[in-house]
Amino acid sequence: MGVVVPLEEGKKRGGARIEPLVALVQADMERVNELILSKAGSDVSMIPEVANHLISSGGKRLRPMLTLAAARMSGYRGEGHVKLAASVEFMHTATLLHDDVVDESDMRRGKPAARKVWGNQASVLVGDFLLGQAFKMMVDVGSLDALDVLATAASVIAEGEVMQLAAAKSMTTTEDEYLAVIRAKTAALFSAAAEVGPIVAGKGRSERAAFRSYGTNLGLAFQLVDDALDYGGSSADLGKNVGDDFREGKITLPVVLSYRRGSDADRAFWQRALERGEIGEGDLEQAIGMMRTHRAIEDTIERARHFGAVARDALAPFPDDGFKAALLEVVDFCIERAH
Amino acid sequence: MGVVVPLEEGKKRGGARIEPLVALVQADMERVNELILSKAGSDVSMIPEVANHLISSGGKRLRPMLTLAAARMSGYRGEGHVKLAASVEFMHTATLLHDDVVDESDMRRGKPAARKVWGNQASVLVGDFLLGQAFKMMVDVGSLDALDVLATAASVIAEGEVMQLAAAKSMTTTEDEYLAVIRAKTAALFSAAAEVGPIVAGKGRSERAAFRSYGTNLGLAFQLVDDALDYGGSSADLGKNVGDDFREGKITLPVVLSYRRGSDADRAFWQRALERGEIGEGDLEQAIGMMRTHRAIEDTIERARHFGAVARDALAPFPDDGFKAALLEVVDFCIERAH
Repeated sequence: MGVVVPLEEGKKRGGARIEPLVALVQADMERVNELILSKAGSDVSMIPEVANHLISSGGKRLRPMLTLAAARMSGYRGEGHVKLAASVEFMHTATLLHDDVVDESDMRRGKPAARKVWGNQASVLVGDFLLGQAFKMMVDVGSLDALDVLATAASVIAEGEVMQLAAAKSMTTTEDEYLAVIRAKTAALFSAAAEVGPIVAGKGRSERAAFRSYGTNLGLAFQLVDDALDYGGSSADLGKNVGDDFREGKITLPVVLSYRRGSDADRAFWQRALERGEIGEGDLEQAIGMMRTHRAIEDTIERARHFGAVARDALAPFPDDGFKAALLEVVDFCIERAH
Repeated sequence: MGVVVPLEEGKKRGGARIEPLVALVQADMERVNELILSKAGSDVSMIPEVANHLISSGGKRLRPMLTLAAARMSGYRGEGHVKLAASVEFMHTATLLHDDVVDESDMRRGKPAARKVWGNQASVLVGDFLLGQAFKMMVDVGSLDALDVLATAASVIAEGEVMQLAAAKSMTTTEDEYLAVIRAKTAALFSAAAEVGPIVAGKGRSERAAFRSYGTNLGLAFQLVDDALDYGGSSADLGKNVGDDFREGKITLPVVLSYRRGSDADRAFWQRALERGEIGEGDLEQAIGMMRTHRAIEDTIERARHFGAVARDALAPFPDDGFKAALLEVVDFCIERAH
């Protein structure tokens, strides 16, 4: 079920890796991980249980790595970036806990979702707890600018969720409307994670704008490739199964394109399956078949490639060093996951 | 100085034309043109002189054609679309008059700018007059939704101009920041022009969203190609000369990409030429040479192609008829101008 993606001219296929970034921030990241474990602690034993269920489930921790790398690239020598990175990961974890409740998801990163083990109420409240802990760590760092950027991201993310609730189940969603949703739901946190790096390092407008742009466009590319993989990856890559989005009735870009490009019969299929949630045997295969016919997965990845190119240019002015090379490779890595 | 652009797979080169759209809306457009002439009239003789200088200078009137075509595609049979189309063109004309004052431009569409003939004050005030006339025509049509969309566009355009004033002359502008400017300055009016078509026809949310998305993305593609042509077209195509943006110190996407991808020496060049306005003999050629080195013009067109693809998908759900085919061809026409 792999998706064949045309290669960019002169680019080697499948060569991009996340490991150079992991290696560069490893020392800092170990302290982020310790902080995450300690700040998820509570005398209320259910809190660390629920939090650690997700925290220890093997996410790549891409977002906090962005914060660490951006701070280091900005010449930062202090300690604040570790707390900001942990805050970013907590914001992400809180979002996942709440998302699974809203989407009624059963699985997350290849394990039962927290809400399936401890229930919806615990998932909502532990998410709130982590968000509170995230803000406490930000306040500890003492940068009002960083607090502003992350608090804004928190409300934009929530706004994006509500936008999606409102747009959800409407097959007439346009690509622009869907992009507005993922710009808020996914890209806003990538953007904030990257921007707080130069902020904590005391850098000015242009460095902040460059990292914000890098984060935003990487986030968009990342989410679009995720959307594509959901109709053509293997569950090992994703920590979820092919077709999860389909079964949950999520309207993502491959669906938007297939619907808009489809025949009347195609559209009736999508309305039945995603708007009314009537999904039967063989429907996922039919959905994937329609996507193939309309090149919806390829073009979703093509759109991701556009945002990846913008992300790369955002970092172009920085001196060529290991951090920059690693962050550029992350862009390619996010897109090449589609292979 | 032509730019060589890689072709999209399976697309014939240079085949796209604007004429099918022109032919389809011709009867309506004649009435728009009459209305434009009559509403630009005034007992204050300077008003029609200034207005007609620009009105009769051979613009393509793409925006009002979008309104007409979108209304017809939405099954509209009334008269309101003619007034809305004239309003859209007046809004555009007013913007051009004001722009030339703000940018201190000498030429517009191959003729001296109105401000060079009648002065800045007359240009500002006649722009205001046309904007007032535009709103009067919209009120005549009586659709509050159309008024809302066009009034919002008017303030977004002004916001975009101010944004550009603030961002102008800063070489550290990111691609995202530049896109935000042209989204407001150019794409907002394309978007409103297209959206009022389904509105006046009484169509619902999804048709409005589709035309809005088509207009927005066509506008973005159009502006980016314009930006590219300014560094590589012939003045016959543009009604302005190659290098106008450069001489006026405008920071457009080809410049943003060249600057960000450039060496320290390149950046010093751009800062001198565009931030400080110190432009000497041979500087335009050097600027174009740097753009070639960094593939800045090709990639600007590549970005335009992305937005063009989104515009095409916005219209995909509509039945295949002459109007849809003509509007899709306009997307390709806007991009193929780059040849």
